Amino acid sequence: MSASPARRLRWAEIIAVGTELLAPPRLDTNSLVITRRLNDLGIEIRAKTIVGDRADDLRSAVRGAMARTELVVLCGGLGPTDDDLTRDVVADVTSRAMSEDPGIVDEIRRRFEARGARMPERNRRQALVPDGAVVLPNAAGTAPGLWIEHEGSILVLLPGPPAELTPMLESVVEGRLASLAGDERLHRRVLRVCGRTESETDEAVAPVYSQWLHEDPPVETTILSSPGQVELDLTLRSASAARASARLEAAVGALTAILGADVYSTDGRTIEEIVGGLLRARGWRIGVAESCTGGLVSARLTEVPGSSDYVGLNVVCYSNEAKAAHLGVDRALLAAHGAVSEPVALAMADGIRALAGADIGLGVTGIAGPSGGSASKPAGTVVIAATTARDRLVRTFRFPTGRARVRLFSVQLALDLARRLLTGQAPGGAFVYSPSAGRG
Amino acid sequence: MSASPARRLRWAEIIAVGTELLAPPRLDTNSLVITRRLNDLGIEIRAKTIVGDRADDLRSAVRGAMARTELVVLCGGLGPTDDDLTRDVVADVTSRAMSEDPGIVDEIRRRFEARGARMPERNRRQALVPDGAVVLPNAAGTAPGLWIEHEGSILVLLPGPPAELTPMLESVVEGRLASLAGDERLHRRVLRVCGRTESETDEAVAPVYSQWLHEDPPVETTILSSPGQVELDLTLRSASAARASARLEAAVGALTAILGADVYSTDGRTIEEIVGGLLRARGWRIGVAESCTGGLVSARLTEVPGSSDYVGLNVVCYSNEAKAAHLGVDRALLAAHGAVSEPVALAMADGIRALAGADIGLGVTGIAGPSGGSASKPAGTVVIAATTARDRLVRTFRFPTGRARVRLFSVQLALDLARRLLTGQAPGGAFVYSPSAGRG
Repeated sequence: MSASPARRLRWAEIIAVGTELLAPPRLDTNSLVITRRLNDLGIEIRAKTIVGDRADDLRSAVRGAMARTELVVLCGGLGPTDDDLTRDVVADVTSRAMSEDPGIVDEIRRRFEARGARMPERNRRQALVPDGAVVLPNAAGTAPGLWIEHEGSILVLLPGPPAELTPMLESVVEGRLASLAGDERLHRRVLRVCGRTESETDEAVAPVYSQWLHEDPPVETTILSSPGQVELDLTLRSASAARASARLEAAVGALTAILGADVYSTDGRTIEEIVGGLLRARGWRIGVAESCTGGLVSARLTEVPGSSDYVGLNVVCYSNEAKAAHLGVDRALLAAHGAVSEPVALAMADGIRALAGADIGLGVTGIAGPSGGSASKPAGTVVIAATTARDRLVRTFRFPTGRARVRLFSVQLALDLARRLLTGQAPGGAFVYSPSAGRG
Repeated sequence: MSASPARRLRWAEIIAVGTELLAPPRLDTNSLVITRRLNDLGIEIRAKTIVGDRADDLRSAVRGAMARTELVVLCGGLGPTDDDLTRDVVADVTSRAMSEDPGIVDEIRRRFEARGARMPERNRRQALVPDGAVVLPNAAGTAPGLWIEHEGSILVLLPGPPAELTPMLESVVEGRLASLAGDERLHRRVLRVCGRTESETDEAVAPVYSQWLHEDPPVETTILSSPGQVELDLTLRSASAARASARLEAAVGALTAILGADVYSTDGRTIEEIVGGLLRARGWRIGVAESCTGGLVSARLTEVPGSSDYVGLNVVCYSNEAKAAHLGVDRALLAAHGAVSEPVALAMADGIRALAGADIGLGVTGIAGPSGGSASKPAGTVVIAATTARDRLVRTFRFPTGRARVRLFSVQLALDLARRLLTGQAPGGAFVYSPSAGRG
């Protein structure tokens, strides 16, 4: 493979500006969006800083970032108030005077007038442009962005509100940044796995993917886990979309050969989209009867637009009485085995299938905790059954504790059991999830 | 009020270390935990930085933070591998030699032996201690933390895994940091509001809470919104817990007097906990029949441990047929008014109440979108009804579009309607939520 053309831009830093972003309940989602789009261009992030509305701190953060990297993307602090310091601080750091751009003033005035309002005087601040800066138009708000090249660094100033930032970022990424980033792009494929923990998955595939790091260009693999799901993110830098696609396709194939039917998605689809697709392909309907998940399985299935094509009726049977009265679960079965048992889960799946007139039924019963457990069935014990007129699958799981986590694991594994019944791939492997599987 | 005693520590910065934290799907949750606990001590955060595993970048970030603030908390990068650079970089920045602490080596070795394993040689790195540093024991892992005082700055190095970081942070916050932070603490109260948008809420209460900023000490108010909910966070610094509590109680009272029954929680409880508490207090049971929310109302109700005391049966009736067959909704009603109508929502609430043998029924029917809307009932139109044997409430909402958002608004407003019926406080106010209400 020939060497890729020299790249000018390879590294960036992000600075998010705003005291409100430092309060614990706030998340700086802008920097995630910026990271994703810069990564697409093959530009990697070296550091991200969140800094409050203090000129000294912001000045120091901008200077630090410029010393470390060639591209600094700032978001926030371009508003009209005294708290909005980004423009002034960047002008100061780059030793540039600012002057009012009459075109921007007109544009801001037009925006106010379109709403029947007068432009407040203070909004003129948003029309100040440091000498030599390129103005980035804002289609969704009053604050224009700025592009400043200074002593080998590029500073891009974007507004904070996501509705304004996103389109401006798009146009910068597709325009100026794309041309500076060279021809290489980051190409990405995602494998989603259910039925193995993160460490079981890694143990199985690490010998293979670790070899790919020595290729030119290397395929990088990142493993992420969430309750009941492991995600393998494969990325590859290449100037050729076709070559990248072929290499990633082969990599996906190699991992799928190892992980088998535990891989449920290789095209970015979620488990509920996969199950929905399988149902739609057969013209089938599904019915769900849930206990410990309290409606979450049904909620996940119906997250998919158009799911009314295959969902008609689901029930949440929290009490034994409801399981007996509405799903026709035999009271003797409940008495003999307890509500959290394979016979009851199967009876729930059969019951909802009959009640809803569905082709496949799903029954989920378990102990989400913290109370309700026993020595033989501790909190985290969940039984899931999937049945059709012909086939049936039932599994007992022991999930890591924590009420919310048990429920999330259960939802994922319930949808996965439906997938396996629909595709005729009975699950193997261990069904005791180690606590580390759901960490974080 | 007398002046508070001089405080030594007032400001801090956080540096999270790890290249993996710079990938878009990862969230740096550690810094949220650190922020919250430092805020509790009255210490505010000036900046947060996430930096990858590169010595130069980390060195520059540590130097920048030390120049700006008196306390720098670093998390991550204390592991045994070559990627774990925090210890070395901090020793370098503070010009200190490191030496192996035999006690730490023993402790690490014991940890491995307890698991029947031998300590790998590379783990000795975790026993290196910069001259003059205080070792912070790690009860949950091998990497000890470090406390280093250097030229007026304090550097606290914590491990990255949350299970190790959290207990170590607790002991540092309650020990060394508490004594340096002075007597003042941050005291906090939260008001939760449903039935007004963020801007409607702010307009109503800003004239009152803005005055509190001029008090000594000031009460600060922060407004946060999520779909269907507005949260008012009140904070106050004081050395006296009793005085702070009395002042905040009065502030909560003043805001509640303005916002009335739209305030549903002043003690941190969620809407599902409030509804659960009201049901439990009367010994009542609730039944939920949902369409567009697909099970989310039921799932939220059952998030609360012990909710099986008041939840027995809920149903998700996605199809008209299911509404008629299982909830007894009159087919003529469906034909005349459509599934998304007040008569149908009321019939669903009555139907589930009868079916579940519940005391209060909740019916939710709407168009989550993106498709399924019409000119008179666009996507985002949701009708919610709550009924008991005696009372009934029904409201039609127009929520900001976006399938997930419409569903989240609906869940919140459905639970709120149940609360209002249970407390006899019929909702007033506007029920068209402006798009800005759910921003972010």
